Amino acid sequence: MAAGAARVKYEGRKDLMLVVFERPASVAGVFTKSKTASAPVVWDKRIVRGGAARALVVNSGNANAFTGNFGGEAVKQTADAVAELIKCSAEQVLVSSTGVIGEKLDVSRITTALPDLQKRLRASAWRDAAEAIMTTDTFPKGASCVTTLNGREVRVNGIAKGSGMIAPNMATMLAYIFTDARLPNAILGRMLRSSNNRTFNCITVDSDTSTSDTVLAFATGAVPLGFTPKSIGDERLRPFSIALQNVMLDLAKQIVRDGEGATKLVQVAISGASSIRAARNIGMSVANSPLVKTAIAGSDPNWGRVAMAVGKSGESIVQERLRISIGPFVITDQGRVRDDYQEDLVAAYMQGQEIDIGIDVGVGRGRAVVWTCDLTHEYVSINADYRS
Amino acid sequence: MAAGAARVKYEGRKDLMLVVFERPASVAGVFTKSKTASAPVVWDKRIVRGGAARALVVNSGNANAFTGNFGGEAVKQTADAVAELIKCSAEQVLVSSTGVIGEKLDVSRITTALPDLQKRLRASAWRDAAEAIMTTDTFPKGASCVTTLNGREVRVNGIAKGSGMIAPNMATMLAYIFTDARLPNAILGRMLRSSNNRTFNCITVDSDTSTSDTVLAFATGAVPLGFTPKSIGDERLRPFSIALQNVMLDLAKQIVRDGEGATKLVQVAISGASSIRAARNIGMSVANSPLVKTAIAGSDPNWGRVAMAVGKSGESIVQERLRISIGPFVITDQGRVRDDYQEDLVAAYMQGQEIDIGIDVGVGRGRAVVWTCDLTHEYVSINADYRS
Repeated sequence: MAAGAARVKYEGRKDLMLVVFERPASVAGVFTKSKTASAPVVWDKRIVRGGAARALVVNSGNANAFTGNFGGEAVKQTADAVAELIKCSAEQVLVSSTGVIGEKLDVSRITTALPDLQKRLRASAWRDAAEAIMTTDTFPKGASCVTTLNGREVRVNGIAKGSGMIAPNMATMLAYIFTDARLPNAILGRMLRSSNNRTFNCITVDSDTSTSDTVLAFATGAVPLGFTPKSIGDERLRPFSIALQNVMLDLAKQIVRDGEGATKLVQVAISGASSIRAARNIGMSVANSPLVKTAIAGSDPNWGRVAMAVGKSGESIVQERLRISIGPFVITDQGRVRDDYQEDLVAAYMQGQEIDIGIDVGVGRGRAVVWTCDLTHEYVSINADYRS
Repeated sequence: MAAGAARVKYEGRKDLMLVVFERPASVAGVFTKSKTASAPVVWDKRIVRGGAARALVVNSGNANAFTGNFGGEAVKQTADAVAELIKCSAEQVLVSSTGVIGEKLDVSRITTALPDLQKRLRASAWRDAAEAIMTTDTFPKGASCVTTLNGREVRVNGIAKGSGMIAPNMATMLAYIFTDARLPNAILGRMLRSSNNRTFNCITVDSDTSTSDTVLAFATGAVPLGFTPKSIGDERLRPFSIALQNVMLDLAKQIVRDGEGATKLVQVAISGASSIRAARNIGMSVANSPLVKTAIAGSDPNWGRVAMAVGKSGESIVQERLRISIGPFVITDQGRVRDDYQEDLVAAYMQGQEIDIGIDVGVGRGRAVVWTCDLTHEYVSINADYRS
């Protein structure tokens, strides 16, 4: 892998990364459900169906989204350039772009920079790669886990970017997961989707779903497993599933922690809902509420806004059983504030940088946990003049 | 009607209004769909089914929401106090409360202040009444229209409050509409719901739905119509329907214009959708997008974010036909930016205080218009310390 500066939009920083696999790697992906998906997303969806990857190329600064026929041609030209350099088929090259929407991508800047990147390819350049895909991110995001699979040591490494326009819908911002375990496409894909539903699909910064959300997982196959897994229920896959989910959750939380303007990481745990889906909807209703998020920014234990956000979700609740807690403090029970509630204690807790909100809605057994951040002045500053 | 200071929460300003009808008035209402609806909403829903109103009492400063059994008792005590003063049944008294959620309402402050309000009742105190129901509003909101109904002159007056926690769901913030036309409950209710779907249900400030949303319409019956309308399709009702909708739209736009921290009124007109409902969903997806709203705050013609918000709505669109315009400027056609697009002209237009966004999604004939405001630093300031 290698990273470099192609000056797609930014000056004086890395904005292009290239990963090359020596042998064809298994690949699986989940993508944005946006109806205005970007050209690279359309391309990658097709390549992932093919099922073998030789390279991944990602640029920041321009999303190549909403650029008409031109967008698809730009992706093709990029893939062709990589294919020629490393002698493979363009159909084995995954492409991602992130940055401003609707502006023409100057693809020649990418193709001109690629030969230099190829010369500088090395086995490990995780930090450089994570830096090259940043846009409004304030720190590069990576996570790693070593586990055993059928007695063999395997690694799961991941990098991600994301800070604003974060409300994944069956997908997320850009994230790339790599493992040396020899896993078939179908198994890799099913494990990816299962982990994704509990990680990237459970975070929100601002309720805005990107046109470019992409999570790709690659399995290079360097470590043979000694067995052929038939289903993800196979007990021997369990340590690997846990490692995969840990890496993805770690990256997802890094994205929220780096939410545009964020000063606090907020965990919302829902229980007692009519289903897992209902629990997730209630959690997202709270996690996306601007009034809850501004109260958290102000360290204000305004739990009434949490009750409001639960109510607006439209999911079944029993108001007389609604229990809301912030940190270790149970605030409401039986549909009203507890007599022993001490607001000053909760206000002191909320001065911290990690806020836990617990909500039991008293209906059933559905549970979910979602993550968000606070809504601050800085979010407005970043987004009122992002392009200028 | 009369207004006064009961010191429910605020000091030194009006926070209580009382309207008394000499004879029982027809009454109709639409209310929040929140699952954590406030105690006054629960009460009013029942009273409206009864169908005759003798009084309306509204306090600001405390929403009496999420206050358990206590909340219902507080409403009953308020209605009883009014009933005793004006000699009617408590079941003929409508009650609303707006303000902080989850705090016990000190109902004695209201009952103590009521006798003085009753002594000061006069035929017209619209501005005082509109001021008494304000919370974070920066100006009182009223609208009025005179029209003819079957040749007779009738009036439609309305007042409203609302600034934050605005994303009505089949209802809205507090609004009260009064007419002297003699209209049966059923007709008044159907006209109210029809107008509501095109006015209060088409605005958003921050996507947060209140626990207290209430629109009540009263028809005093002072002006007999000379006919008994059987359906709202009756042609003779048409001028009145238009007047009602005009008054409600005027109030709805005033709420958006006074959105917390707002500096611009934004109109989003959707056409070409698969249905009216789809058009409204797309419009609300754009109107609720924090990234669109912060771009507007910065007068940044970042139309890519508009395309993103259309995409995340999940409604059918034909990306190759998507047409986005801002003010008189058509920006995209056939899924990409037009060659003759001049960003500096659009940027100049966006310096104004009224921004029109037009979107045709190229699928069908569904149309809708919704209204929102920009998202500014001031919104964060107001809501990070509303209670302190």
